Amino acid sequence: MFDDIVAGVLAGKVAAGARVIRWLDDRDPRGSAVVRQIFPATGRAQIVGITGPPGAGKSTLTDMLVAELRRRELRVGVIAIDPSSPFTGGAILGDRVRMARHALDPGVFIRSMGTRGQAGGLSRSTHGACLILDAMGYDLIIVETVGVGQEEIDIVHLAHTTVIVGVPGLGDEVQAVKAGLLEAGDIFVINKADREGYLATHRQYEMMLHLRETSRRNPDPAGWSVPLLRAVAQNNEGGPELADAILAHLDALEASGAFARRSATREREHVLGLVRDHLMRRSLTAESDAVMAQVEARLIDPYTAAEKMLALIGTGGKLK
Amino acid sequence: MFDDIVAGVLAGKVAAGARVIRWLDDRDPRGSAVVRQIFPATGRAQIVGITGPPGAGKSTLTDMLVAELRRRELRVGVIAIDPSSPFTGGAILGDRVRMARHALDPGVFIRSMGTRGQAGGLSRSTHGACLILDAMGYDLIIVETVGVGQEEIDIVHLAHTTVIVGVPGLGDEVQAVKAGLLEAGDIFVINKADREGYLATHRQYEMMLHLRETSRRNPDPAGWSVPLLRAVAQNNEGGPELADAILAHLDALEASGAFARRSATREREHVLGLVRDHLMRRSLTAESDAVMAQVEARLIDPYTAAEKMLALIGTGGKLK
Repeated sequence: MFDDIVAGVLAGKVAAGARVIRWLDDRDPRGSAVVRQIFPATGRAQIVGITGPPGAGKSTLTDMLVAELRRRELRVGVIAIDPSSPFTGGAILGDRVRMARHALDPGVFIRSMGTRGQAGGLSRSTHGACLILDAMGYDLIIVETVGVGQEEIDIVHLAHTTVIVGVPGLGDEVQAVKAGLLEAGDIFVINKADREGYLATHRQYEMMLHLRETSRRNPDPAGWSVPLLRAVAQNNEGGPELADAILAHLDALEASGAFARRSATREREHVLGLVRDHLMRRSLTAESDAVMAQVEARLIDPYTAAEKMLALIGTGGKLK
Repeated sequence: MFDDIVAGVLAGKVAAGARVIRWLDDRDPRGSAVVRQIFPATGRAQIVGITGPPGAGKSTLTDMLVAELRRRELRVGVIAIDPSSPFTGGAILGDRVRMARHALDPGVFIRSMGTRGQAGGLSRSTHGACLILDAMGYDLIIVETVGVGQEEIDIVHLAHTTVIVGVPGLGDEVQAVKAGLLEAGDIFVINKADREGYLATHRQYEMMLHLRETSRRNPDPAGWSVPLLRAVAQNNEGGPELADAILAHLDALEASGAFARRSATREREHVLGLVRDHLMRRSLTAESDAVMAQVEARLIDPYTAAEKMLALIGTGGKLK
């Protein structure tokens, strides 16, 4: 049975993949057991993060992008992170009507996942889910977030290619894109570009891209110049250009050796996420809340508090 | 002897305070032992972080600010974080010629500290040093960083009041201020304001301040409107306005209850810094480097790697 699931994932069977992703999200130990087995078969897919402020039309843009990539006969996995989804113990297939047109296409696999709490939610199950889709043989794996909170930042470490989606008409809406993301985006798209205010928004993004050039932490791969695209996803405009940019970025990553480097970062972040998650679950207890409340009320000193926290985590030792 | 040091700190004796800060930096257990003793006597001082890009003249500005605060008969402690200082096993008193005019003033206490490695350097000893200066009875404690790296961001959690120093003439120099800081600054000062390009820089900061208004994570205390000041510290211009702004910010913090909230955040960050520092020292070993190298080379899977890391930290357990 378990071996059938592993074989099913490696053969690209949707039912097997869906089941493992549910296990991962449920912390069912069979989930990580499968990941351990299929890990050697991973490392090939291009992971593409798509993020941006709420209201930017990321879902519609993703839908258009999937259709365009399918037209090019690429197999596409989509993980839609939706913290607002009422999480019912596993991923929900087919909960997105707008994706319905891909529902019968075996070359597309779509999962919605909740984030279930803030502590490493994205890194823990999303990293694992990406490995499953990778082992299933999808060429590209698109991870779409709603663009609120820490998962936006996490996605930068998760993806080979990060696409930032903006939208005109929110006034100074560059503000809605977190600064860390502006630094990290590989491709920028202004969606709903037929709206009033497009030119002003375009100018703002141009300026931000100019400002960030010397302040980036991760340099662009050699030969990559960050594109600023326009799209009207609802009218199906801009899909080919976005697909071109994503595939061109893959070429640039591979030509410069950056693909392997970003893959290495992905795995490192996955490991650190698992370690943090484990330590957090050990320390995020009523007892640790009580310790923090005591130090915040100045009833105990920070060293005593830190020792109590470490004891709760299970690693003792006197602090110096 | 040890009790004499504790009593000396509580009596505001410079020699005692200097010794404990050296202990803290050396990880001499006597350092944390003193902090544990004096902790109940802390919580009164206003911690002021001063940061900004290299070349902004932060040291000269701090010097001017100290002189102005002394004119108002306030006692001032200064901790200058200098990662480039050749760290010789303790803080170096009087190593800054420009501060010489305060050297004989018992109302001013100045320490330079290295950061000694990136892993929580600022949080670990700087938090402790602030508590010592607090217990010594200084009204304000100024923590000045060179504005490079993570300590800039850490300072936001360390300070009640964060002052960001900019400077004209570096072209688009807003870029040199990390985005997280732009979000977190309570007071902005453009120093060297007699230089060419001041108006352009002023406009850039105004725009950034406008942009950030709706994207801040920590809202301003009620009634606080972030000021954008000008200064020419070398000519002693702008000191009174900066001192006014810092003291007005304290009033706003106290009136709104935000002072206690930021103090609580300080202590929480201090504890988390100590916990992280302890775990990092346990995990940052040649063995853990080897584990990460194995997963980056895809020789072992992330779950196995995480379990190895946890074993190195000293807290075992099977990952799910």
